[in-house]
Amino acid sequence: MKTMNDLFLHFLQDVYYAERQILKALPKMAAASQNAELKQALLHHREETEGHVERLQQVFDKIGKTARGTTCEAIQGLIEEGEDVIHASEPGSVRDAGIAACAQAVEHYEMARYGALIAWAKSCGQPEAAELLHKTLEEEKKADTLLNGLAHKTLNPGAARKAA
Amino acid sequence: MKTMNDLFLHFLQDVYYAERQILKALPKMAAASQNAELKQALLHHREETEGHVERLQQVFDKIGKTARGTTCEAIQGLIEEGEDVIHASEPGSVRDAGIAACAQAVEHYEMARYGALIAWAKSCGQPEAAELLHKTLEEEKKADTLLNGLAHKTLNPGAARKAA
Repeated sequence: MKTMNDLFLHFLQDVYYAERQILKALPKMAAASQNAELKQALLHHREETEGHVERLQQVFDKIGKTARGTTCEAIQGLIEEGEDVIHASEPGSVRDAGIAACAQAVEHYEMARYGALIAWAKSCGQPEAAELLHKTLEEEKKADTLLNGLAHKTLNPGAARKAA
Repeated sequence: MKTMNDLFLHFLQDVYYAERQILKALPKMAAASQNAELKQALLHHREETEGHVERLQQVFDKIGKTARGTTCEAIQGLIEEGEDVIHASEPGSVRDAGIAACAQAVEHYEMARYGALIAWAKSCGQPEAAELLHKTLEEEKKADTLLNGLAHKTLNPGAARKAA
């Protein structure tokens, strides 16, 4: 990587790989959840993630590159942590609280990545790419806020009753 | 994991492992950076991270458990991504912009984890543990904001000149 364009392309490929892994992980997390609102939030975010993949393909188009991913170790680790929680728990409120926390960690990762990509797209003279990436960032933030509210209002109080 | 206490302990061990990995990674990232402010920010955050490890030990104490870590795949992946950027670039402004972005991804991961841990500590009836974790969360947020400002003000414009 010698130029900012190289850096931008590398992280674009990284997040493209990540989004497609998330696409596969979300239905599994939803299937392992018992709380209906959590299940719904995860499945709704899966639909949004399809849109994120499409937007990334548009960004690749705009910079004249073929859409392809590069292995993203971070997302692999984040998804693995969610799987660990599922394997180490029974279906129910404690598992649901853990799943929501792992999904929020994924959202936070994406927020960091899209934040950098938007800045770099602007620096590379690609305002339309930046605009597309910004739309996705807003959806990641909303997904995190929704999960956070759900955790505080429903999932954590439910799981806490298990500690009593 | 059957109770919220189990969930809290698992993620406490996870973040304890993560903080100690970050302690080892930050000096390497600082050594690979050329920008003096970035180097300084990473080394300053390493000092803060020592405090985070100590606070976690206090939290383990408060819940009557021995401080120990459990492998955190997410932090391994996040640190690996930073190493990949360093290996794939020469010392200079493009690498510095990449390092800052990878450090911000680590901060975001920690923000997600500490956010959940604080909520769970409160649910578990451990307000003092929550208070300790909250202090660390504030420092993670500040570190992210500092890196973000540095990226926008100095690192990205510097790296963008390489694209010209």
